[in-house]
Amino acid sequence: MYQIPRGTRDFTPDEMGKRRYVENVMKNTFKTFGYREVQTPTFEHLELFTAKSGDAVIDELYSFQDKGGRDLALRPELTAPVMRFYVDKLQMEPKPLKLFYLGNCYRYDRPQKAELIALAYHILRNVGLKNINLKIGNLNILSVVFDKLKLTQDQKRHITPLIDKSMFGDISLALKDFNVPEIEIQEFLSFLQTGSIQEITDYVPDNDEALNELNTMKQISVLLKTSFGIENFQISMGIVRGLDYYKGPVFEIEAPCLGAEKQLCGGGAYELISLFGGRESPTSGFAIGFDRTIVALETEEFNFPRSEIDVYIIPVQKECMKKGLDIAQQLRKNNIKTDIDLLNRGMGKCLKYASTISAKFVFILGERELKEDSITIRNMENGQQELLKINDVISWIKAQLNII
Amino acid sequence: MYQIPRGTRDFTPDEMGKRRYVENVMKNTFKTFGYREVQTPTFEHLELFTAKSGDAVIDELYSFQDKGGRDLALRPELTAPVMRFYVDKLQMEPKPLKLFYLGNCYRYDRPQKAELIALAYHILRNVGLKNINLKIGNLNILSVVFDKLKLTQDQKRHITPLIDKSMFGDISLALKDFNVPEIEIQEFLSFLQTGSIQEITDYVPDNDEALNELNTMKQISVLLKTSFGIENFQISMGIVRGLDYYKGPVFEIEAPCLGAEKQLCGGGAYELISLFGGRESPTSGFAIGFDRTIVALETEEFNFPRSEIDVYIIPVQKECMKKGLDIAQQLRKNNIKTDIDLLNRGMGKCLKYASTISAKFVFILGERELKEDSITIRNMENGQQELLKINDVISWIKAQLNII
Repeated sequence: MYQIPRGTRDFTPDEMGKRRYVENVMKNTFKTFGYREVQTPTFEHLELFTAKSGDAVIDELYSFQDKGGRDLALRPELTAPVMRFYVDKLQMEPKPLKLFYLGNCYRYDRPQKAELIALAYHILRNVGLKNINLKIGNLNILSVVFDKLKLTQDQKRHITPLIDKSMFGDISLALKDFNVPEIEIQEFLSFLQTGSIQEITDYVPDNDEALNELNTMKQISVLLKTSFGIENFQISMGIVRGLDYYKGPVFEIEAPCLGAEKQLCGGGAYELISLFGGRESPTSGFAIGFDRTIVALETEEFNFPRSEIDVYIIPVQKECMKKGLDIAQQLRKNNIKTDIDLLNRGMGKCLKYASTISAKFVFILGERELKEDSITIRNMENGQQELLKINDVISWIKAQLNII
Repeated sequence: MYQIPRGTRDFTPDEMGKRRYVENVMKNTFKTFGYREVQTPTFEHLELFTAKSGDAVIDELYSFQDKGGRDLALRPELTAPVMRFYVDKLQMEPKPLKLFYLGNCYRYDRPQKAELIALAYHILRNVGLKNINLKIGNLNILSVVFDKLKLTQDQKRHITPLIDKSMFGDISLALKDFNVPEIEIQEFLSFLQTGSIQEITDYVPDNDEALNELNTMKQISVLLKTSFGIENFQISMGIVRGLDYYKGPVFEIEAPCLGAEKQLCGGGAYELISLFGGRESPTSGFAIGFDRTIVALETEEFNFPRSEIDVYIIPVQKECMKKGLDIAQQLRKNNIKTDIDLLNRGMGKCLKYASTISAKFVFILGERELKEDSITIRNMENGQQELLKINDVISWIKAQLNII
């Protein structure tokens, strides 16, 4: 038997129903916020990704050569391709340019300002998640604090991933190694863990940039509460993200039900345009883990809308087939999801099949019905049957399905 | 500047609007016919594609190795992956299994029974194409005719692509080379070009299989006309497709406006399950060229529905920002596509921007409006302005946009 490649998967009709539901709610929420969709290719020149993430990323990529010997790679992320697209074709568009994009990303051996934050939050609420945590941080403030502790570039690189993983013991040991006094280490750990803007303000040095960013954080907090109706978020200075190119406010959204892999979304402001050869312009964005969102909804036992068949038509005898097909076409023209037994398989088998495909109604068309210009309609939910004139069928089924 | 890989492209918001429109109509038409969506990975083991198409296909593939040294390839087509999926996980599902799938396919250096036919036709009509031609052929009949001409396997392989391209002069020369008598060559060429089932019946040998298939063709013709409302199709025995695995009825749909690359859709019944290790079961399907469908619509000057912004809000002074954001959130909750100037850029600049993003209405919120609990509404189509109480805004805009 032919195997599916390692790390990939197929999606059944039921799984696709869930995925398309989530995708459509996400896209629609983007549109209500005035965002427009773009799309880039599945693969890019390898150098596009190494320019952003360094050569180390090659080990995590699916890379290959085209017939002309150029190095290509399946995209591990979408930001670099969209930056390339922007520099190439979108630089002249009127600002602000509000774009969104959906797409599979490919990594080898890896499981896995206020309006923008509100949008990310509303997307995850709109798809139906009940329990999510929003955390807001600020990388410029973190940077000022790193300077206060007199850390070198290498020392920053070393403790950044420890902060990201909330490994406070290891942070403490590392700072001791870097000869930071014990009292300063304790203050720094409190700074990372507090949710109080006041405590953060008290700790942060009296520096123009830091004060400016603290003001921004306060404004974001007020706007989220008063203008976007979001109450339950926390300030957290332990949010790190990509310290090399993210700047200022950053945020993450978690679904606690997912345990260790609880992060669903991360984003903020970043500076990448000049790296790809364009003129720097303020950019911000976020990424949502699509598969994790589905798992979180399943874990919360969310009731996904089912994409059912509305009507399954059973022509009892061969002579009823033509009339059955006529009715099927009329229903389909009225946007009603319709299937029909084209094989004359007998009533028992057909009803069983109608049940496995979750048909809401079965239309039975036999000799008697044909003679009386009628259809026997069976409600598959309660098993009740009634006889209806064919001419009344369309308006009847529309009323049943709430279609105007 | 970083280049996009050769043979790929980016899609702007306008282009994505068209693509999503076509995709949604297509998906919806599938659903009204009772089909359900599945999805397979972007790449597969290389051997999956060589099993179906032979080693020659390797030259047309983007292939690469994973870190474990296994040969993978970006999918050049979707049938083999879905057959693998079927054999792996879907064999036990109740029949008939009606599936559809959308997905990019990757080829290197290449520009490119009656219900099924009706579905393909309705999909292309529903997206808005005015002028399409449906042609129906039959490969079993063609095969019987090849036997009548006493062609060897190699000879069949040689003339099949000539038939596919309607190169009648070359077919004639080839058959002369194969020592087919001149009179038989002329009869064969007429057979390929006639649209009359009667002429085809007269020519085809009196053979059970051929008679059976001729009957099927007649039934399909009648059903298309009487049950599916499709009048303008032609019978054409020159349709070849993949002669190795397609069987019986085949069809193609063309958009004449596209000239040499006019084929939009091709399909029929095929036998591939056993090749991938499963138990043979009747399968049929078709593929639609998504990009060509878009080009055909553009060539016919189709009026794509625009994904416009419904409302653009201009808070004139900084003091009006909070109220403006409140209104934006209310509109968004009511599923109205809303954008707002967060930069206080001045009226002239804002109105120009609203026009470039095709906003239908602009809501102006200044000191006077704030004092009177009102909004000035500007209709961007005719430039008319009116003052409206904030409390009436939601019901007013819903009525304007025909939202219930």
